[in-house]
Amino acid sequence: MEKKKETSSWQVLESQYVHRAPWLTARRETIRLANGHVIPEYYVLEYPDWVNTLAITPDGKFVFVRQYRHGLGVTSYELCAGVRDPEDPDPLAAAQRELMEETGYGGGQWECYMTISANPGTQTNLTYCFLAIGVEKISEAHLEASEELSVHLLTVDEVKSLLLNDEIKQALHAAPLWKYMALHHLL
Amino acid sequence: MEKKKETSSWQVLESQYVHRAPWLTARRETIRLANGHVIPEYYVLEYPDWVNTLAITPDGKFVFVRQYRHGLGVTSYELCAGVRDPEDPDPLAAAQRELMEETGYGGGQWECYMTISANPGTQTNLTYCFLAIGVEKISEAHLEASEELSVHLLTVDEVKSLLLNDEIKQALHAAPLWKYMALHHLL
Repeated sequence: MEKKKETSSWQVLESQYVHRAPWLTARRETIRLANGHVIPEYYVLEYPDWVNTLAITPDGKFVFVRQYRHGLGVTSYELCAGVRDPEDPDPLAAAQRELMEETGYGGGQWECYMTISANPGTQTNLTYCFLAIGVEKISEAHLEASEELSVHLLTVDEVKSLLLNDEIKQALHAAPLWKYMALHHLL
Repeated sequence: MEKKKETSSWQVLESQYVHRAPWLTARRETIRLANGHVIPEYYVLEYPDWVNTLAITPDGKFVFVRQYRHGLGVTSYELCAGVRDPEDPDPLAAAQRELMEETGYGGGQWECYMTISANPGTQTNLTYCFLAIGVEKISEAHLEASEELSVHLLTVDEVKSLLLNDEIKQALHAAPLWKYMALHHLL
């Protein structure tokens, strides 16, 4: 397995924004590869970093939300997740804010569990996945008007069932959940 | 855990394409939620389905590719992956074609291992992840001019190291790899 430092062989010949809005910022680039081949249109999607949290209560329940996802047209169980706002000092603060806003749960011991990307080929951002052990209901949820979701406390057997039945569609959530199952030998 | 059939509560008031190109098709929609709140600009990204393959040789080596990923600006190990072309009769055929083109490996026993989404909120497509056991080198790779990658056969310990060191950034690949580790009790 090679460990040497590699640098990009991609030369950006041209770059221009084709769309700039708070929820969709896309630029089109013309790229020359090391082999001389030119890709005339390569699209890069700029996003702020995202966060999500695998949150577990003192009695071993997993805090999930359930909501409609319009791209895929499905309603599904997901981890609590969101966007790191400019006001969030770091990804951890963003994840703790989102968990409190969407579910009312907080406290506990937090660690960054993994950092992954929805698509490193085209997206500029990372998703920081946290593991929060021992979270408790501290307040009511404070949803924004644009958020419609319900909060569910699932047992480990229910989470295993969701994973084994391919019901966790969001890859950014499936990865940390499967990691948890692997490291805790739960399957 | 609720199992009742749910339907979308989202009403699409307006929908129009803001960009249509082979690698970026985006539409902007105006949505009314069940609570009456209107989201004036919701972006949906249309993509064809994607595929990837966790391919393992008869002597237990994992077939990885290593390539530069421009969105994140990193060079990393990944599973062999690609897009389902209109000519591919099904996702399996697309995954087998991609593995042969990118690595020259084929044959073996294939199963659909999981179906996930890079982002069900905004993307219309699914990614079909396959597990292929017993693949062998059948031909040379046949890369397109736009593809610059190298093929690597990794041991299970090397794959575990990549996962534990957070070096598998692509969530669509991290999820099936962690699933494999969980189901085979390798960690």
